[in-house]
Amino acid sequence: MSGDDLVVGVDIGGTNVRALVVDPGDGSVHDRARGSSAGDGPTLVATIAGLVADLRDRGHRVAAVGIGVAGLADRSGTLRYSPNLPGVVEFPLGPEVERAVGVPVAMGNDATCAALAEHRLGAGRGVDDLALVTLGTGIGTGFVVDGRLLWGAAGFAGESGHMVVERYGPTHHTGQRGPWEHFASGTALDGLVGRPAPDRSVGDDDLPADVLDGYCREVALGVANLVQVLDPARVLLGGGVSGIGEPLRAGVDRWLGGLLLGGDHRPPVEVRLAELGDDAGAVGAALLARGGA
Amino acid sequence: MSGDDLVVGVDIGGTNVRALVVDPGDGSVHDRARGSSAGDGPTLVATIAGLVADLRDRGHRVAAVGIGVAGLADRSGTLRYSPNLPGVVEFPLGPEVERAVGVPVAMGNDATCAALAEHRLGAGRGVDDLALVTLGTGIGTGFVVDGRLLWGAAGFAGESGHMVVERYGPTHHTGQRGPWEHFASGTALDGLVGRPAPDRSVGDDDLPADVLDGYCREVALGVANLVQVLDPARVLLGGGVSGIGEPLRAGVDRWLGGLLLGGDHRPPVEVRLAELGDDAGAVGAALLARGGA
Repeated sequence: MSGDDLVVGVDIGGTNVRALVVDPGDGSVHDRARGSSAGDGPTLVATIAGLVADLRDRGHRVAAVGIGVAGLADRSGTLRYSPNLPGVVEFPLGPEVERAVGVPVAMGNDATCAALAEHRLGAGRGVDDLALVTLGTGIGTGFVVDGRLLWGAAGFAGESGHMVVERYGPTHHTGQRGPWEHFASGTALDGLVGRPAPDRSVGDDDLPADVLDGYCREVALGVANLVQVLDPARVLLGGGVSGIGEPLRAGVDRWLGGLLLGGDHRPPVEVRLAELGDDAGAVGAALLARGGA
Repeated sequence: MSGDDLVVGVDIGGTNVRALVVDPGDGSVHDRARGSSAGDGPTLVATIAGLVADLRDRGHRVAAVGIGVAGLADRSGTLRYSPNLPGVVEFPLGPEVERAVGVPVAMGNDATCAALAEHRLGAGRGVDDLALVTLGTGIGTGFVVDGRLLWGAAGFAGESGHMVVERYGPTHHTGQRGPWEHFASGTALDGLVGRPAPDRSVGDDDLPADVLDGYCREVALGVANLVQVLDPARVLLGGGVSGIGEPLRAGVDRWLGGLLLGGDHRPPVEVRLAELGDDAGAVGAALLARGGA
């Protein structure tokens, strides 16, 4: 395919902005660039435009830009509020980047973008009803329903980390009492272990079996809630915590069976590990920009 | 329109089977019949077929039959499990009724059917992303996402009454600990008041303001969870409890604003009362049978 069919997928995190040159046909990543996500809205626009310019300077012909960002990313391209970006509130990020880069820009919630990528290219292939759960600093979720991304009215679907699972539970840093991510995020797991680990892996010897099992129950409890609401055929576990691998998957799977009411009369919900790793959000944003959802 | 475009919509409850002759064009109800829902699968098939025969004997030409039923109604027409029908488990209700009545039969969860009816003909008109919450013996929910019914992989979406909102909470009759319907169903409200009331209404003087307010908070807590997951533009309150009317709506609306994380950055979610009353499930089933979803 010709070079002008490439798309830049941008993933805006709490520290970095990552820009990937993606072939939306197969999701292959041709190049990468990185900048800081610090600053206000105009600064962020300049950062993204600078990364796109750098990638163009390297010879990539960029047909569109997709942006994935945590939080309330309005379908119109306005970033209402992102926990990662305290200085960028109610800011028309999509339109401003579009003006700066001169090609079409699409924007969406990062977990929703990641769900799109996993559905097309990763562990979500082959099912029409899918839930992706990313376990990191918080919990992000993205859903495919009947083959299509679930956006919601404003684009805010999938803020499931804020589901309350203990109505008079401990107060989370968000101010809510007892939300799912208070118990089941990567941050919560760090608290159980007593030491932060940005990316956990199978060999993590700080992780006793009983601690992991208790954590898996917390994850499964929220997953069970999502299954009651959405009835996905498959649930994918992603984010930094998913580096634990099979012990995490098996633990969540085991608890889920017991927690799901009516389990005897339901087809089993598949629990799998996500496949696309850290690139899922940016690759999904690129797919989105190419009209993929 | 000609009489042979009429459809029988069937609503199967814990005590009665109600069959309505519906014009799927405008949802108007032309006639009604009623039988008992007691017995096993074949008995239920005979009951429904008898009601359809009665309605035909009265001169209605029936082009199709739609069935709405609480619980796990498989999209293939198998009733996996219904709390209302302990004698009808893993039974191919849809195909068996179809064989008995000789016209096409569609089957779906009753709250999903009701959501379809409210979306087309009731309080859900005009929005593409809708949640219906029916507050009765338990809690049922049905969703419209991007203009289409949300079924889930097997047809089991919307079992949201079983969302856990208090992970170490009291044990519900289902065996779960702390599900939403334990706190927010009509049965739960009866418990708060100390006396059952199958259909509450505005003039219900058993309902002190502080009891209603506490109940509204329980409803709003689960609604807030659904909004975090699905981002509907509008939430409808239906079921017997919705007979309370505006005091219920206003109470849920008020609590929801405070419980929704990021509320300052979200468009407000409209809370309205459902409009179609007890007929919503049967009318929606009729629409479903006419290929309405």
